[in-house]
Amino acid sequence: MEEIRRIGVFTSGGDAPGMNACIRAVVRTALAHDLEVFGIRRGYAGMIEGDFVEMDGRSVSNILQLGGTILKSARSKEFMTPEGRAKAAEQLRQAGIDALVAIGGDGTFRGAAVFYEEHRIPIVGCPGTIDNDLFGTDETIGFDTAMNTAIQNIDRIRDTADAHDRLFLVEVMGRDAGFIALNCGIGSGAEMVLIPETFTDIEEIKERILSLMSAQSRSSIVVVAEGDEHGGATQIAQDLRQDPAFARIDLRVCILGHTQRGGSPTARDRVLASRLGAAAVEALLQGHANVMVGVVNGEIKLTPLKHVYSRKKTIDYELLKLTQLLG
Amino acid sequence: MEEIRRIGVFTSGGDAPGMNACIRAVVRTALAHDLEVFGIRRGYAGMIEGDFVEMDGRSVSNILQLGGTILKSARSKEFMTPEGRAKAAEQLRQAGIDALVAIGGDGTFRGAAVFYEEHRIPIVGCPGTIDNDLFGTDETIGFDTAMNTAIQNIDRIRDTADAHDRLFLVEVMGRDAGFIALNCGIGSGAEMVLIPETFTDIEEIKERILSLMSAQSRSSIVVVAEGDEHGGATQIAQDLRQDPAFARIDLRVCILGHTQRGGSPTARDRVLASRLGAAAVEALLQGHANVMVGVVNGEIKLTPLKHVYSRKKTIDYELLKLTQLLG
Amino acid sequence: MEEIRRIGVFTSGGDAPGMNACIRAVVRTALAHDLEVFGIRRGYAGMIEGDFVEMDGRSVSNILQLGGTILKSARSKEFMTPEGRAKAAEQLRQAGIDALVAIGGDGTFRGAAVFYEEHRIPIVGCPGTIDNDLFGTDETIGFDTAMNTAIQNIDRIRDTADAHDRLFLVEVMGRDAGFIALNCGIGSGAEMVLIPETFTDIEEIKERILSLMSAQSRSSIVVVAEGDEHGGATQIAQDLRQDPAFARIDLRVCILGHTQRGGSPTARDRVLASRLGAAAVEALLQGHANVMVGVVNGEIKLTPLKHVYSRKKTIDYELLKLTQLLG
Amino acid sequence: MEEIRRIGVFTSGGDAPGMNACIRAVVRTALAHDLEVFGIRRGYAGMIEGDFVEMDGRSVSNILQLGGTILKSARSKEFMTPEGRAKAAEQLRQAGIDALVAIGGDGTFRGAAVFYEEHRIPIVGCPGTIDNDLFGTDETIGFDTAMNTAIQNIDRIRDTADAHDRLFLVEVMGRDAGFIALNCGIGSGAEMVLIPETFTDIEEIKERILSLMSAQSRSSIVVVAEGDEHGGATQIAQDLRQDPAFARIDLRVCILGHTQRGGSPTARDRVLASRLGAAAVEALLQGHANVMVGVVNGEIKLTPLKHVYSRKKTIDYELLKLTQLLG
Repeated sequence: MEEIRRIGVFTSGGDAPGMNACIRAVVRTALAHDLEVFGIRRGYAGMIEGDFVEMDGRSVSNILQLGGTILKSARSKEFMTPEGRAKAAEQLRQAGIDALVAIGGDGTFRGAAVFYEEHRIPIVGCPGTIDNDLFGTDETIGFDTAMNTAIQNIDRIRDTADAHDRLFLVEVMGRDAGFIALNCGIGSGAEMVLIPETFTDIEEIKERILSLMSAQSRSSIVVVAEGDEHGGATQIAQDLRQDPAFARIDLRVCILGHTQRGGSPTARDRVLASRLGAAAVEALLQGHANVMVGVVNGEIKLTPLKHVYSRKKTIDYELLKLTQLLG
Repeated sequence: MEEIRRIGVFTSGGDAPGMNACIRAVVRTALAHDLEVFGIRRGYAGMIEGDFVEMDGRSVSNILQLGGTILKSARSKEFMTPEGRAKAAEQLRQAGIDALVAIGGDGTFRGAAVFYEEHRIPIVGCPGTIDNDLFGTDETIGFDTAMNTAIQNIDRIRDTADAHDRLFLVEVMGRDAGFIALNCGIGSGAEMVLIPETFTDIEEIKERILSLMSAQSRSSIVVVAEGDEHGGATQIAQDLRQDPAFARIDLRVCILGHTQRGGSPTARDRVLASRLGAAAVEALLQGHANVMVGVVNGEIKLTPLKHVYSRKKTIDYELLKLTQLLG
Repeated sequence: MEEIRRIGVFTSGGDAPGMNACIRAVVRTALAHDLEVFGIRRGYAGMIEGDFVEMDGRSVSNILQLGGTILKSARSKEFMTPEGRAKAAEQLRQAGIDALVAIGGDGTFRGAAVFYEEHRIPIVGCPGTIDNDLFGTDETIGFDTAMNTAIQNIDRIRDTADAHDRLFLVEVMGRDAGFIALNCGIGSGAEMVLIPETFTDIEEIKERILSLMSAQSRSSIVVVAEGDEHGGATQIAQDLRQDPAFARIDLRVCILGHTQRGGSPTARDRVLASRLGAAAVEALLQGHANVMVGVVNGEIKLTPLKHVYSRKKTIDYELLKLTQLLG
Repeated sequence: MEEIRRIGVFTSGGDAPGMNACIRAVVRTALAHDLEVFGIRRGYAGMIEGDFVEMDGRSVSNILQLGGTILKSARSKEFMTPEGRAKAAEQLRQAGIDALVAIGGDGTFRGAAVFYEEHRIPIVGCPGTIDNDLFGTDETIGFDTAMNTAIQNIDRIRDTADAHDRLFLVEVMGRDAGFIALNCGIGSGAEMVLIPETFTDIEEIKERILSLMSAQSRSSIVVVAEGDEHGGATQIAQDLRQDPAFARIDLRVCILGHTQRGGSPTARDRVLASRLGAAAVEALLQGHANVMVGVVNGEIKLTPLKHVYSRKKTIDYELLKLTQLLG
């Protein structure tokens, strides 16, 4: 292993609140170890184009609390080709960048692993995605903020649902996983939660909603993960409305959408991002590569990138039971 | 005019943050004047059914800060018939309710005016609607909160739009009026605002967006009122996407929807609702009826209900120019 | 009058949320009129030192939603001397700055008026202070945000006060004026409000608190303006504690302090700041000077700087009555 | 062990956001198991007085999102005596309450353990305190909310500190422990953190502050735990001000105080409180007593009450290093 003198840091894939806090931690930790740091703008796309900017301590002042990512993010088709990756490696070499910290999710790490296999530039990943669906860490950067944003908005919807005794289907993010939906369901006191991990029996759902709404003549909120295998909230609403029993029910849909991606990160996401950013640099300095840093049971842990995207993190089924018990 | 000893208060139509603060002010002001107060639940529907509950000072403790309405709201078809209104009047008489405070919008006041014509039970209105589209008051209860909720969510969308250089069409409430959209446009730094009050030339819009996005390669946000005459955000997005020039633009839609109806009211809405609730009771005691209390240029002002729903409040065209100047 | 080609903009005195939105509006409006714009850093201190930075459209991107001021603020003793002001004028001349927009409060405008008398460089003021105590505008930039921050914090204090049946004295900002305290009192449902504009009779206060707390065995919140003539919350608490009748009352003090100065501005402050920033530039271009732009009854209005700091804006005594009626 | 048919639930000690979510979970879980539930108002004080209220499913509707505690809290000197505890036991027997869920902190559990020793009424604790200083759980109910409230307020202070290049000492809660201070320090990007767990060398602090402020002429924020062994923020400010080197530094103090105790709980606190409330009832039904339910490494875990208050939970010293690395 050669000595590392200059590292590059980038964000890639869907942005998540806390990415800036992570960039800040990477930069400050690297500087504290007398490394030079370059920001790579727009992820792999910027890497191919050599869109690099040197970063000093001031360049990350006052970004800790900002949503989004000052380095921007993008998806790059070119990086999916060997030629694209070769160009990227060449750009890094020309800029004297010896090692990389990649902040992103699943797709980011697939790319990183292939890139490492081909070009052997040490790379360590930081889990940055609101979906929390990465193996190798109990929580991902952005998950806590996304949940809080969603819950604040569902609280507002509850106010108006109660005023009119309405049924609301609220769709939250989660294309492949129900982590946000499940926690938001419990946290918002939702009457029901529909997630990709469980089978959605539309007849059973109808029955439960009708019994809830008739017995108590009150409002109900159903939290739906966008990736529910039955379809998102719009599809489910359509199915419910086709049933004459739902004619008398005032049913509305609200899709929280991209509001969940932005915003100032929560305390927890800021601390998590700071820890992981620092740990990523330290992992590089200790000679690690092709791994993701995560927090498992409160401790920093390294997981091979390959495991991160090939293994499945499962939801806590106790939480699912809890939604049924308390809803 | 007979002496008023017992008043009824109700909320009707779409709920708005600050309605509870208004109920509290009505109740406490009435009690301070030694009146009795009854809450009428679910608006005109509850009035017809005699769904009344006596309210004392404690019954409105700690509701000031809550969104929604503790008295619930509803729409009533029966109240649109003379028979329905006769039933309602009979219920009020049986309960000894001499006068009414109605908190709601356009439709609420149309009903109130007819009811007053027919049954002569004194009624005073308080403007409670997030849309701010009522003649006779500079601001309606709930407008300020809805704007702030929308702007907080647009700020979040801006974070993710910037990270990916995306174009977002964000739809805010406002079926007939652009007050929310216009203020949110300025307040969120939107690049464009589309409202019902102005003609939306889709070709001109395309041109401006394309020039914004290409010149600066940056994110853009277009705020669209749900009642824009061209259609809401979904319709406009569809039109844009049919143009090949938009193929390279990453365009997303977010509909803020009912999140704008709920939530803890802002300082301004709490103060406004408190002032108007107190003023409504005082207007009744001074012998007024068939009017709405509003705040015009900082002062309480009474406006005949008929004017409230038949006259049009216009947006401030200076603000519209400002969106073009600053966006 | 000579033609204006290059203007300078600065923030001065206590910072207020919305100052950045105002800077942005000044810059963008000036650029739209083909003016050049320089930011003057750290108020009059930076003016004396020639601490200027040219501003283009991008330099104010994404600052609308930020608290604080990107141009920083400071107080300058040197500017209080004729020599200091002469230096400042010389710096402006050397930099080719023909006219100024000053964003600040009382003290800022006193300085501006003297400077204009001496050096005749056209200057227009924008009212930026959380205290709202400026004659010539219904609201100042930052006031709405400060109120909302205070009310959110008082809501939190109410939660814990209720849980323990405690009495809280909460001190809000307002050295010379009770605008924040008065509105926060109504908006938070406080049982009492103490402001500089009214005489605080400590014996009467004791009596009212004791009657509130004993009759209902409940929590009470008293909002105190820092500038209350009896002293702030700490002084009043000390006085209450000396009375044996208060021995059984669990009394706490909370001073909200500088939390009220920062934070992302509210919708209203963003719109107000945008309007005023644009209006200030337009006023300069129309040949006005030595005036402040304000909003009075919804319309932009110019007021001589001299009136701004020599005349007194009075609180709304109807609001004061309301605190007694509803508290 | 006798069968449990009726349980009592109470909150005690300092209130914490999420206590209501916990009460709701206790009530709903108990009802789902066909138990009867009584709320005991004002903690041990209410237990001695027999201040009980039966709770059904509706009684806990819409409380999940509220700060404070609907059952109120109090401290009771009488319960510290054997006679007081005997009275309490007698009241419970008369009301037919077979078992208890206690939501509170250290002091609550000391009382509970003695009470159990003497009267053998099964009792299970839920950790409810913002301080997070309880052995047997990774997090306590209220901790996450308190951190987020503190960080939001420190963000606001940062805005004004930056505008004026000021030094702020911000005091957060934590009489015996630095959990809040440490996490808030990292989360707010504070330049320094002072906590009870580490020795505060005032000379070293001065040196670091002076070097920070002079080298970069920028703002600094020092987060101080109220229980720092050197004294809180006020004491430290006094010490700094006595040093002539600090004459030129604009130093301010802000004590966040009771704002940290209230407010709507965060997503995390709601989920944690829901899990623990349900787990407490299930623990009682499984025959456990004299234990606290906690979450350790993601799993529910029971810890003898005696260990909870006699053993010490230590801060994460890695986090302390992080504040020095990133600050």
